[in-house]
Amino acid sequence: MTRLFNDPAAFVDEATEGFVAAHAWRVRQVPGGVIRSTKSEPDTVAVVIGGGSGHYPAFAGLVGQGLAHGAAMGNLFASPSAQQIYSVAKAANNGAGVLLSYGNYAGDVLHFGQARDRLVSEGIPCEMVKVIDDVSSASLEEINKRRGIAGDLTVFKIASAAAEAGYTLDEVVRVTEAANLRTRSFGVAFDGCTLPGADDALFHVPEGKMAVGLGIHGEPGISEQEIPSADELAELLVGRLLEELPEGVERANGARASVLLNGLGTIKYEELFVVYRRVNRLLEEAGVRIVEPEVGELVTSLDMAGASLTLFWLDEELERFWHAPADAPAYRKGSVATAEQIDAAELDIPDPDAIPPASEESRQSAGRVLAAIEATREVIVENAEELGRIDAVAGDGDHGIGMERGARAAAETARDAAERGAGAGTLLRMAGDAWADRAGGTSGAIWGAALNALAATIGDETAPDAATIARGVEKARDNIMHFGKAQVGDKTLIDVLVPFSETLTEQVNRQASLPDAWGTAVERAHEAAQATADLTPRIGRARPLAEKSIGTPDAGAISLAMIVRAVHDVLQEQASNG
Amino acid sequence: MTRLFNDPAAFVDEATEGFVAAHAWRVRQVPGGVIRSTKSEPDTVAVVIGGGSGHYPAFAGLVGQGLAHGAAMGNLFASPSAQQIYSVAKAANNGAGVLLSYGNYAGDVLHFGQARDRLVSEGIPCEMVKVIDDVSSASLEEINKRRGIAGDLTVFKIASAAAEAGYTLDEVVRVTEAANLRTRSFGVAFDGCTLPGADDALFHVPEGKMAVGLGIHGEPGISEQEIPSADELAELLVGRLLEELPEGVERANGARASVLLNGLGTIKYEELFVVYRRVNRLLEEAGVRIVEPEVGELVTSLDMAGASLTLFWLDEELERFWHAPADAPAYRKGSVATAEQIDAAELDIPDPDAIPPASEESRQSAGRVLAAIEATREVIVENAEELGRIDAVAGDGDHGIGMERGARAAAETARDAAERGAGAGTLLRMAGDAWADRAGGTSGAIWGAALNALAATIGDETAPDAATIARGVEKARDNIMHFGKAQVGDKTLIDVLVPFSETLTEQVNRQASLPDAWGTAVERAHEAAQATADLTPRIGRARPLAEKSIGTPDAGAISLAMIVRAVHDVLQEQASNG
Repeated sequence: MTRLFNDPAAFVDEATEGFVAAHAWRVRQVPGGVIRSTKSEPDTVAVVIGGGSGHYPAFAGLVGQGLAHGAAMGNLFASPSAQQIYSVAKAANNGAGVLLSYGNYAGDVLHFGQARDRLVSEGIPCEMVKVIDDVSSASLEEINKRRGIAGDLTVFKIASAAAEAGYTLDEVVRVTEAANLRTRSFGVAFDGCTLPGADDALFHVPEGKMAVGLGIHGEPGISEQEIPSADELAELLVGRLLEELPEGVERANGARASVLLNGLGTIKYEELFVVYRRVNRLLEEAGVRIVEPEVGELVTSLDMAGASLTLFWLDEELERFWHAPADAPAYRKGSVATAEQIDAAELDIPDPDAIPPASEESRQSAGRVLAAIEATREVIVENAEELGRIDAVAGDGDHGIGMERGARAAAETARDAAERGAGAGTLLRMAGDAWADRAGGTSGAIWGAALNALAATIGDETAPDAATIARGVEKARDNIMHFGKAQVGDKTLIDVLVPFSETLTEQVNRQASLPDAWGTAVERAHEAAQATADLTPRIGRARPLAEKSIGTPDAGAISLAMIVRAVHDVLQEQASNG
Repeated sequence: MTRLFNDPAAFVDEATEGFVAAHAWRVRQVPGGVIRSTKSEPDTVAVVIGGGSGHYPAFAGLVGQGLAHGAAMGNLFASPSAQQIYSVAKAANNGAGVLLSYGNYAGDVLHFGQARDRLVSEGIPCEMVKVIDDVSSASLEEINKRRGIAGDLTVFKIASAAAEAGYTLDEVVRVTEAANLRTRSFGVAFDGCTLPGADDALFHVPEGKMAVGLGIHGEPGISEQEIPSADELAELLVGRLLEELPEGVERANGARASVLLNGLGTIKYEELFVVYRRVNRLLEEAGVRIVEPEVGELVTSLDMAGASLTLFWLDEELERFWHAPADAPAYRKGSVATAEQIDAAELDIPDPDAIPPASEESRQSAGRVLAAIEATREVIVENAEELGRIDAVAGDGDHGIGMERGARAAAETARDAAERGAGAGTLLRMAGDAWADRAGGTSGAIWGAALNALAATIGDETAPDAATIARGVEKARDNIMHFGKAQVGDKTLIDVLVPFSETLTEQVNRQASLPDAWGTAVERAHEAAQATADLTPRIGRARPLAEKSIGTPDAGAISLAMIVRAVHDVLQEQASNG
């Protein structure tokens, strides 16, 4: 269990401060995370990694010469927000574009994607590689659905060494994708970890049992069995990984690979070495040439009891980059060239509170948007308790609290932005970021993403017409469906959002006014929400949360229906006031 | 708990094999432990460290360029034997002498001392520095009684950097002792660790409590309290260490120090960083200039839940050596120069089975010594169960088993040595090493030390007369008392050994024959053993084992009395046979 903390809510901020103090000559803190404290070659690609906190050395421990240029650091086991990632990437940028790399989890995919959009819109070339090494999380046919676990390290290391070598962004992407497809991991768990201040572990494995393929946040695994001997575990892990050689590696015999044996927290060094003894022998028997292996704690989950094995199949280029020197807080090899410390004054640290210029029209629109956001806050605050109650039937009961926190933060931020002259797009973006940051969880990510999609469509130049707003809602819907992977019928807010968006677009195409179109869409939304809610007592939770499905089932649908109705009232009032 | 192992008895050997396989380009295995796999400058001092296993990265993880030249690796939490240390030191020796450095625990003191004697007797200059950083284990007045904990790292690092810089052995000792006296640590524990295959942890701290100053093997601490917040823990640790500035550091304000915040196994990185945040602020407030701190797992105890803070107060020379580059499996900083791999054929690896030349007389004596050792085995095997029963009253009940394993191994080794023409001294030394290796525990260390002291006194040149044997017994007694710190009356085998040795010397000085003198001494020994044993039911265990006092109380005294009587029978028989 996690024993040492002050205020659990401040845990990540305080850990970050301590981490930076301990490694001041390698990293420095910027809004959203950390970057190298050393200068990089100008006009080279910057590699920015990130993910939830609690996985040290991932992610901040892997920032430094020869490794990543920056890491965006989310809350414990929660994706960093798009704003955090964007901000770290801006500070890390060396002029030749940014590669974002992160483990394949829904929240990370969503937020890194948004950050990328924002960077590209500002003219910073940006590409993404999501790590998919965990063979137990999806079949080979669905390799793109696999999670990222300890293979983060090999992918980040190769990307960074390629950037350090002066590769262009396209070349960095090519070699990073090659590393990603040639990295395969398989893990087991014996017990979960406890978040600071929590009463119990995130999950448990029954005493004396081992969960095979269980995810590092407790995502379901493949099977459960008795705890094997160290040798049997080695055989299980090596056997599974040798079954699945990546494309380009025809047979294990004679192939070159690096090997990572990773402890997740409380499986300690001596135990790992006992397991590695057998791993090493088995791979040698299979004819694999082992190159610079690593045995230790590379990607953890606080004090989770678990271990994973990673094989990273090399080609000549990958092997060269794997050998390349690195000097990060938690990963050092070879001799790096001495580098100057950066000058903080030269950093491009975006001020998240800065208001970009906007047209007069757009600033007037911003006032209307603010009214809609304030109406949203009112309806959520009024119904927070009821939403919690609904959520408790099928979900974990925190939907009301999360929505209330998010909506309050969004309204407060929006009012401040309006007072400081923000256009409608900027106001929506800042409100969305505030919502995501303060609400946390999946609903925070969804609402953050929705408002950001609207913001990007509306912009700060013109007053949005009905068609633009309908397009913005479509974009929000597409984003959420793309990243969250929920479909209509999964009993999530998608069940409401899809008919709402369809109707809105349809009505606008028929030249209906915005208030009228919106009103018709609200009716459809409420029918859909009702249908969804009615199912709850009969079929229970729609999709297990552990699958990181989208939204809090049905309570999310209901809160969306409430919000669009509240917004309708505002639109009507605004129309009648001229 | 420790979950991953095969045969618990093979745990350390298997972990060592895995460790060496994972770090083959930095370390190589030799009998007794590991040495660097890279060549060192000729005619430089070799730093050889060591201690029990289960503390990774201590000790083997700290072998490599810029750090130690070799590590002797004992069983889990048990000192390496003198033979192991000697063997590693011979292989690591670069021609300018050897510094042995280790934590201050009775078994380590005993065995490193013996190894040093053997190296010196072979003309290899050898000095020792025992680490004494743990302020909670003894008062400042008794600083030499303090234990070594995470301060191992600073002391080893300085010694190694000085050796690397070409310092002579005397200079290395000077700077290492300075580092030792300027390193102060203070630790806390929340729960103990479980040895592989054991049913329960070595010790427990009550749920929700924190033991202050508890030793890493469960040795008693200062007090117990509620688990504090991270900030309160930082205040406790920093406060205690600032109370006690070492000589040469007049005040904290303006002084330069490195800081180690060490996790012992399951207190994880993020927690340590939260604590370090406050440590850093407190030290800055006190005016301490922090130099290259380390936050992580530096000296562990398997999966023990605990943490310690170390302050290492620098002067100019120490700071230079602290900054010096290092490239060990678990500790890397800066850029080390590329070094060639060693040629295994050039290593001086002593063959523990080699029989040095001996005089004909000494070889005949060896036959008599063999008979005495075989008689010892007989009496122990016959009484093993009874000794276990006696030990169970006051100790942990394993005295009989340990003595039986040791005596059997000693007799077997002695017979083999005699058959291969060993002199009496060599035969005793090999028997003593075998006893220590196989018996383990404190009684193994004691009997190994006793036979080694006799061996060194007797040698391989002449047949020992009564006076030589009496001197050998005195030497054995002095060794055991010096290293074990027990006195007559502590209810250990010292209660028997002291009167036995005194009487033997007295009788020999009066010109009594060896059998007669020995016989009189045996009578005194039995009186003393009886007196010791009688006390047991009334006063219970004499000294807590956790203090690493010498011997298993009273069962050790009784087995010694049995052995000297059995040897007396052999002496009489030999005398009557001529």
